[in-house]
Amino acid sequence: MSRQIGTQRHELCFTNKCPPPESRLWLVRNAGAPSFRIERDTFGELRVPSDKYYGAQTVRSTMNFKIGGATERMPIQVIKAFGILKKAAAEVNKDYGLDPKIADAIIKAADEVAAGKLDDHFPLVVWQTGSGTQTNMNVNEVISNRAIEILGGKLGSKDPVHPNDHVNKSQSSNDTFPTAMHIAAATEVHQVLLPGLQTLHDALAAKAEQFKDIIKIGRTHTQDAVPLSLGQEFGGYVQQVKYSIERVKASMPHVYELAAGGTAVGTGLNTRIGFAEKVADKVAALTGLPFITAPNKFEALAAHDALVELSGSLNTVAVSMMKIANDIRFLGSGPRSGLGELILPENEPGSSIMPGKVNPTQCEAMTMVAAQVMGNHVAVTVGGSNGHFELNVFKPMIIKNVLNSARLLGDASVSFTNNCVVGIEVNTERINKLMNESLMLVTALNPHIGYDKAAAIAKTAHKEGSTLKATAVKLGFLTEEQFEQWVRPQDMLGPK
Amino acid sequence: MSRQIGTQRHELCFTNKCPPPESRLWLVRNAGAPSFRIERDTFGELRVPSDKYYGAQTVRSTMNFKIGGATERMPIQVIKAFGILKKAAAEVNKDYGLDPKIADAIIKAADEVAAGKLDDHFPLVVWQTGSGTQTNMNVNEVISNRAIEILGGKLGSKDPVHPNDHVNKSQSSNDTFPTAMHIAAATEVHQVLLPGLQTLHDALAAKAEQFKDIIKIGRTHTQDAVPLSLGQEFGGYVQQVKYSIERVKASMPHVYELAAGGTAVGTGLNTRIGFAEKVADKVAALTGLPFITAPNKFEALAAHDALVELSGSLNTVAVSMMKIANDIRFLGSGPRSGLGELILPENEPGSSIMPGKVNPTQCEAMTMVAAQVMGNHVAVTVGGSNGHFELNVFKPMIIKNVLNSARLLGDASVSFTNNCVVGIEVNTERINKLMNESLMLVTALNPHIGYDKAAAIAKTAHKEGSTLKATAVKLGFLTEEQFEQWVRPQDMLGPK
Amino acid sequence: MSRQIGTQRHELCFTNKCPPPESRLWLVRNAGAPSFRIERDTFGELRVPSDKYYGAQTVRSTMNFKIGGATERMPIQVIKAFGILKKAAAEVNKDYGLDPKIADAIIKAADEVAAGKLDDHFPLVVWQTGSGTQTNMNVNEVISNRAIEILGGKLGSKDPVHPNDHVNKSQSSNDTFPTAMHIAAATEVHQVLLPGLQTLHDALAAKAEQFKDIIKIGRTHTQDAVPLSLGQEFGGYVQQVKYSIERVKASMPHVYELAAGGTAVGTGLNTRIGFAEKVADKVAALTGLPFITAPNKFEALAAHDALVELSGSLNTVAVSMMKIANDIRFLGSGPRSGLGELILPENEPGSSIMPGKVNPTQCEAMTMVAAQVMGNHVAVTVGGSNGHFELNVFKPMIIKNVLNSARLLGDASVSFTNNCVVGIEVNTERINKLMNESLMLVTALNPHIGYDKAAAIAKTAHKEGSTLKATAVKLGFLTEEQFEQWVRPQDMLGPK
Amino acid sequence: MSRQIGTQRHELCFTNKCPPPESRLWLVRNAGAPSFRIERDTFGELRVPSDKYYGAQTVRSTMNFKIGGATERMPIQVIKAFGILKKAAAEVNKDYGLDPKIADAIIKAADEVAAGKLDDHFPLVVWQTGSGTQTNMNVNEVISNRAIEILGGKLGSKDPVHPNDHVNKSQSSNDTFPTAMHIAAATEVHQVLLPGLQTLHDALAAKAEQFKDIIKIGRTHTQDAVPLSLGQEFGGYVQQVKYSIERVKASMPHVYELAAGGTAVGTGLNTRIGFAEKVADKVAALTGLPFITAPNKFEALAAHDALVELSGSLNTVAVSMMKIANDIRFLGSGPRSGLGELILPENEPGSSIMPGKVNPTQCEAMTMVAAQVMGNHVAVTVGGSNGHFELNVFKPMIIKNVLNSARLLGDASVSFTNNCVVGIEVNTERINKLMNESLMLVTALNPHIGYDKAAAIAKTAHKEGSTLKATAVKLGFLTEEQFEQWVRPQDMLGPK
Repeated sequence: MSRQIGTQRHELCFTNKCPPPESRLWLVRNAGAPSFRIERDTFGELRVPSDKYYGAQTVRSTMNFKIGGATERMPIQVIKAFGILKKAAAEVNKDYGLDPKIADAIIKAADEVAAGKLDDHFPLVVWQTGSGTQTNMNVNEVISNRAIEILGGKLGSKDPVHPNDHVNKSQSSNDTFPTAMHIAAATEVHQVLLPGLQTLHDALAAKAEQFKDIIKIGRTHTQDAVPLSLGQEFGGYVQQVKYSIERVKASMPHVYELAAGGTAVGTGLNTRIGFAEKVADKVAALTGLPFITAPNKFEALAAHDALVELSGSLNTVAVSMMKIANDIRFLGSGPRSGLGELILPENEPGSSIMPGKVNPTQCEAMTMVAAQVMGNHVAVTVGGSNGHFELNVFKPMIIKNVLNSARLLGDASVSFTNNCVVGIEVNTERINKLMNESLMLVTALNPHIGYDKAAAIAKTAHKEGSTLKATAVKLGFLTEEQFEQWVRPQDMLGPK
Repeated sequence: MSRQIGTQRHELCFTNKCPPPESRLWLVRNAGAPSFRIERDTFGELRVPSDKYYGAQTVRSTMNFKIGGATERMPIQVIKAFGILKKAAAEVNKDYGLDPKIADAIIKAADEVAAGKLDDHFPLVVWQTGSGTQTNMNVNEVISNRAIEILGGKLGSKDPVHPNDHVNKSQSSNDTFPTAMHIAAATEVHQVLLPGLQTLHDALAAKAEQFKDIIKIGRTHTQDAVPLSLGQEFGGYVQQVKYSIERVKASMPHVYELAAGGTAVGTGLNTRIGFAEKVADKVAALTGLPFITAPNKFEALAAHDALVELSGSLNTVAVSMMKIANDIRFLGSGPRSGLGELILPENEPGSSIMPGKVNPTQCEAMTMVAAQVMGNHVAVTVGGSNGHFELNVFKPMIIKNVLNSARLLGDASVSFTNNCVVGIEVNTERINKLMNESLMLVTALNPHIGYDKAAAIAKTAHKEGSTLKATAVKLGFLTEEQFEQWVRPQDMLGPK
Repeated sequence: MSRQIGTQRHELCFTNKCPPPESRLWLVRNAGAPSFRIERDTFGELRVPSDKYYGAQTVRSTMNFKIGGATERMPIQVIKAFGILKKAAAEVNKDYGLDPKIADAIIKAADEVAAGKLDDHFPLVVWQTGSGTQTNMNVNEVISNRAIEILGGKLGSKDPVHPNDHVNKSQSSNDTFPTAMHIAAATEVHQVLLPGLQTLHDALAAKAEQFKDIIKIGRTHTQDAVPLSLGQEFGGYVQQVKYSIERVKASMPHVYELAAGGTAVGTGLNTRIGFAEKVADKVAALTGLPFITAPNKFEALAAHDALVELSGSLNTVAVSMMKIANDIRFLGSGPRSGLGELILPENEPGSSIMPGKVNPTQCEAMTMVAAQVMGNHVAVTVGGSNGHFELNVFKPMIIKNVLNSARLLGDASVSFTNNCVVGIEVNTERINKLMNESLMLVTALNPHIGYDKAAAIAKTAHKEGSTLKATAVKLGFLTEEQFEQWVRPQDMLGPK
Repeated sequence: MSRQIGTQRHELCFTNKCPPPESRLWLVRNAGAPSFRIERDTFGELRVPSDKYYGAQTVRSTMNFKIGGATERMPIQVIKAFGILKKAAAEVNKDYGLDPKIADAIIKAADEVAAGKLDDHFPLVVWQTGSGTQTNMNVNEVISNRAIEILGGKLGSKDPVHPNDHVNKSQSSNDTFPTAMHIAAATEVHQVLLPGLQTLHDALAAKAEQFKDIIKIGRTHTQDAVPLSLGQEFGGYVQQVKYSIERVKASMPHVYELAAGGTAVGTGLNTRIGFAEKVADKVAALTGLPFITAPNKFEALAAHDALVELSGSLNTVAVSMMKIANDIRFLGSGPRSGLGELILPENEPGSSIMPGKVNPTQCEAMTMVAAQVMGNHVAVTVGGSNGHFELNVFKPMIIKNVLNSARLLGDASVSFTNNCVVGIEVNTERINKLMNESLMLVTALNPHIGYDKAAAIAKTAHKEGSTLKATAVKLGFLTEEQFEQWVRPQDMLGPK
């Protein structure tokens, strides 16, 4: 994740308010004396910064898509996934007869891409061709030039390593980009999201155990209800996170299916029989994840239902997180005028004007993340639904949002755990007070005196500001002894 | 609004689990001895129930679109809007030479449609042709048959009133359906939504005035903050509803633009010069709303941006409603273990198991409505974005959702007002207690002793469970007199 | 599905524009001479129509929640699910000692509810208490009164069958309503959605087989690309629907978990040990679906993540449907000025102004349904995320949307299949023409002459309006024989 | 926009996979010999990089919120808006008695922030406190330290310029952050979005004029329909963009309302009478935009309806853009097997495997942007709806999404214009061919021979593959002369 974003701003201008090309180049020339080489694609020649491995098609894309600027670059996880894929493809192509010298140079260069050593050479933004073709070509150009360098050739010469004919051999953007999408998504899920959720799960489970004997008032409709233990309440959160993990895992099988081998429209034109399976095997070996070749390449190119499905799981996780973080901030509200049952850790000054204020800031970060993930999910849904014929062309947008959701949920889970959950303490005194005053303890009388009489007790006590016991006896529905025997919070935590 | 839904279920089957046609007809024959007449469209003959005014194309649609059943019927507001439109068109056509006898019969029949007298004759569901063609034809058929009846002709004969050549004269589904959409939406906004919001606004404003001298603790981040008056707090809600009304009104101008006169693709083929303007004038006169003819008919058929815009305003209203209803239920939470500052009206038994429980049910209905409106808005957005070429074909879905949002927000505003807002009372004792205990009153000391010292007072008082005054004096930052002079809640409600 | 909606409109007014109560009652009295009995709840007495089984709390709800009207009623599937649940609970309560006479009468009445015989007795709308308490009480009242009737008692007497103490025994709205939600959702999925998707799957699979030898041009970016077979193209759709079925099934396990036995807050207060498990077993037996008791009742009441998850799957299905229906309408566009490869069945007159026009109406219904499901999903997401403490109070809204999505997708799949897919024919002549003219066949030359030369051929041919072969030979890159050997569409459908 | 993102990665670690603090510090010590100074906040001491102006609270936030990394930083537009606001506040405070030396130093430092000269000093991410308190403090710290430096003091000493008591004087995060949100949003709308839309509008309008005499077939339901001119078709797009501009402008009035002066809860505690108005005046003067003080500060802090409203307008713009870009790519589809009416500019090689392929990449970027904006809008909606009591705490998330939507739409409009719209050419030959073959020209016969006969002609001609004229004559409905007189495309472009 350590890409240096923005260090090359001198030669690129992303906004729609750029200076005219002449002045821009002038600026560049005077900014540390950059130099250029000439590269060409099928559209003609272009000047490329001489310290960059990318080539003409990459430069052309930076000229044609000045949308959003540096923060909108293709997620670096996609670039790294491409590194893995290009390495796998080169190994398989070598088996099928690609010159071993060329193949090995490609493999070495691809390794550097996967390791994040060449991050500065991927300047393109998400808002480009909807197939991600330009990012695939950016990768092809960087790997071919770096491989050429390794082999002692001249950058931009396409000799002896051609970006299309060698690096992209047996591939198309249409199958490589979705393959990189799946590799990146699965990796982010496994490296960031699932560990993050597990961390949160374990911390909540420890709290549920710690709090298992603390009896407190329940709240339904935000109103007083019958009691439960604080451990039971946290146990509900634990279950939500446990199921969150299950949900994410359950939506991975189709993400493990790789499009590689489908080439341009899913037929696998210009590949060899077995290529698809071998590439998937290599990627699985390189990542340690159970990737397989997609059983139907047409579906794998034309639709991104697998990522919409994963995004749906992330959306459900976000829903769970919103609930948990909301509960914790309300239960910890106060210090004196809120519910005040929990004491949340104080991590920073809470207010620039109210001295001494402490806020549930981790809950706020988590709920903001949840809202973002819900929004990202709609973007993914709209993009996923608008594929046409043999290719969905919302690919870069879809993967950007899926990766963002996975990353934010994973990171926020860890932050929320370390800076909030593990430090939660209990205001036992307040919890006891609220519980004992509750009118809803009357519910325990239902089986003994029936709903209607029990209701009369609660309503009278509420109106008169009295206790349940006094009211119950006064109304003549039962004796003091019966009340004490029947209304015992510790006996109200489960069935009998 | 008094359409009898479902009374014709004997002859129609909407689900995908219908009995085979033979048995269905058998059932029908035995269910009150319905009889049929034969009608025909360009696709052939069909049996039509003899007690219905609709014709072959309507019956054909019920056979081809068994999706969702009776609750999914085209909103009756669209049918009534069509009644208005067809009347207006007939009046204009009469001016342009349509046989006055035919025109007058159409006008009379259209009046009955607009008045809701023929609601049983519109069985079609939303999930039909995306242009709403079949509902336009349903209207044409009903009006033509009813007009034929008025003129003493034979139902189904298309003589002397033809559904296409006379009722639909100078029209196309492509311009009439969007016209009916706009008429229906504008009418619902004016008859249901805006009055509902105004009702809520006025009730909240009355409460804000009533509560203007009650000083209470403020809450930011759900945590204790500096005080404000309860009137100020409600004043914020008043402002939100005031702006809600403004927002809805601000999004109406493009809704007042009518597509009528554009016919099939927006050119106005087969209409007369002036037809569009005259129809808009007639509709404006009939509804009392400032409808005009759309300045660009191509946009009016191919896009529904005006309704997406209106839906966006409804979405913003929903956001406001969610905030207000959430606040009120939390401020009214309790009765003993919540914030307990407000006392909400008790409208019904709150629980089937917890006797005496009272819940903020109006807040719950309102927040559910808000969530629904947010969802409806996404449906409208997706539909609005997917038009192609000269026609958007998500029309019935779009108008269904817009009308649903307007209706639910309007109705819920009235219900929330009458059953909750007007009856809100204040627990003054509790409000005073919470306010006086608050540590955040320390903020008033900032200008006198600085933020850092004030923070030290609050933190120490919190840790020691002490009062601000005692702590401030103990820490030597000020005297008791100074504290009493500087920390006065009633002086903290505004700038100085 | 045969509930008569709206037949009781004379005594109920749902909108915010109702006549004053007096005139309303007057209307009622004159509308077929309705008569009333007096019922009471803990809030007082109310008049109930004497021909209805519901009681005071139901009437009270109709007075307090005039939101949306008849089309907004609680989905009948929820009512039927309640019938199943109340029967199961009565059977278990009988085992635990409930008077068998009472239990059997409850069981008989519940059976009638489940069978849809009492649909007219459930007038409440979705927009009520967020826990669905009023619908639970509506069910309790109807069953108790019907059971009283069966036992020869007096309606409204609550004797010998009390709605709370007997029908609702060991239950709370807070666990019964979510139980009914899950029963209804699972039933709708199994009875409507999955069969509908299977129908569509099988029809598409048959077409894929039928079309397997038809070679056509592929399209990526909506532009001409390399060829594939029409069978392959349809095979992609088949895979999407196959995965749709898998996705829905994969999201069912948590839906099979029932909250029953959790009562008010999840602890199971006032139930007996084993009650929860036995009820789940009974429901499983009654429905034939693998319901189990929820392992964590706190999660099951406070969150509806399971339904958010299911809704997420429905959203993914909608995404697939949008793609498939869009493709088919574009491939069938024409008849003369579109792509024109497919010939779609003509089901109805397409235009009220353009004679002879035929439109892809089934595709339009399907894509409108897809947009609606995406919107419903956002509503479910917002509702699911806003639960607080021990109870989510967006329950009626959530289940309404989930059921709507399942039903619409299921019904639309059948309609789309029967009225479109099975009748799709191929315009072979046009398919061949387009394929043979395509410049993208040049891709087959890549392995022979390299990407750059192949590109030169395609660009030159495009510019000169010439054929690939002529251009290739003219440019001297290969011989005519080589071209004919290398560029063979039938060899371009897979790897070599 | 020229912030250097990521150059300080050596001292900060944002992910949840950071090395332990010791090793991290070690890395830092060896990475170019950074040095530290000690700063303190009310929570204690912290080491701050000596080359940075920020202080303890900023460092603390980087430690507590490792969520998302560098690409998730607070948008730089918010930082610049804060620069403007802090300058304005200092000027007003000076009028109210703040030491002019201090005020002037603050003004100078704030100017540098507004000018983007200190961008490297704002490392915080969006996912922090929901009030943006930490970013407000980041700004306060940077300005105070820079002002101290200007005055010759010692960084971190808070003397003579205190971040809270001087820079934040009469302010709270709760009013400054929403003020900065509004300044940033309004600025982005005026500097990027509206100019971008205007550019697109003008280019489309020029094309509409250029194409006004080209008659082409219309398409409704994606099927052949009656003709219109290409100018009329583009005129619809022009209208959509014109209305887009109107919509955005219409949603600005509430965005111009500034919360400044409300301080902590909206009362304006610790400000002076007139402060709010004066600050708004200064901001208006500094920006040239018509900012005013919010008439109700409670609403301005507790809700962000104004930005939800703006986001709703951006959502509508996105809907328009999706339609326009979709149409253009379909009309330009081909080159040989699509609709082929438009010829889109060729900007780059389209495929890494299919030589010579050219794709509508600008349309794809635009439609991806549209999908993203729709998703962003849902995130804003969810965040906007979840405010509680006196403060909405989804502020950073809301403004991030609004700014992103405005920027992407603005930039994409310019890119789409320059790289696609201005270069669109027409394939006149194909347009003429398609138009003349169309069966829907038959519609012109409706007024002459009626709908039913016209339908018979079209259906017969379609079935027999014949022309309309030949069929019409053959069927005996009219003469050849009549046909030629009545069916003239150039006469079908408007009413008569």
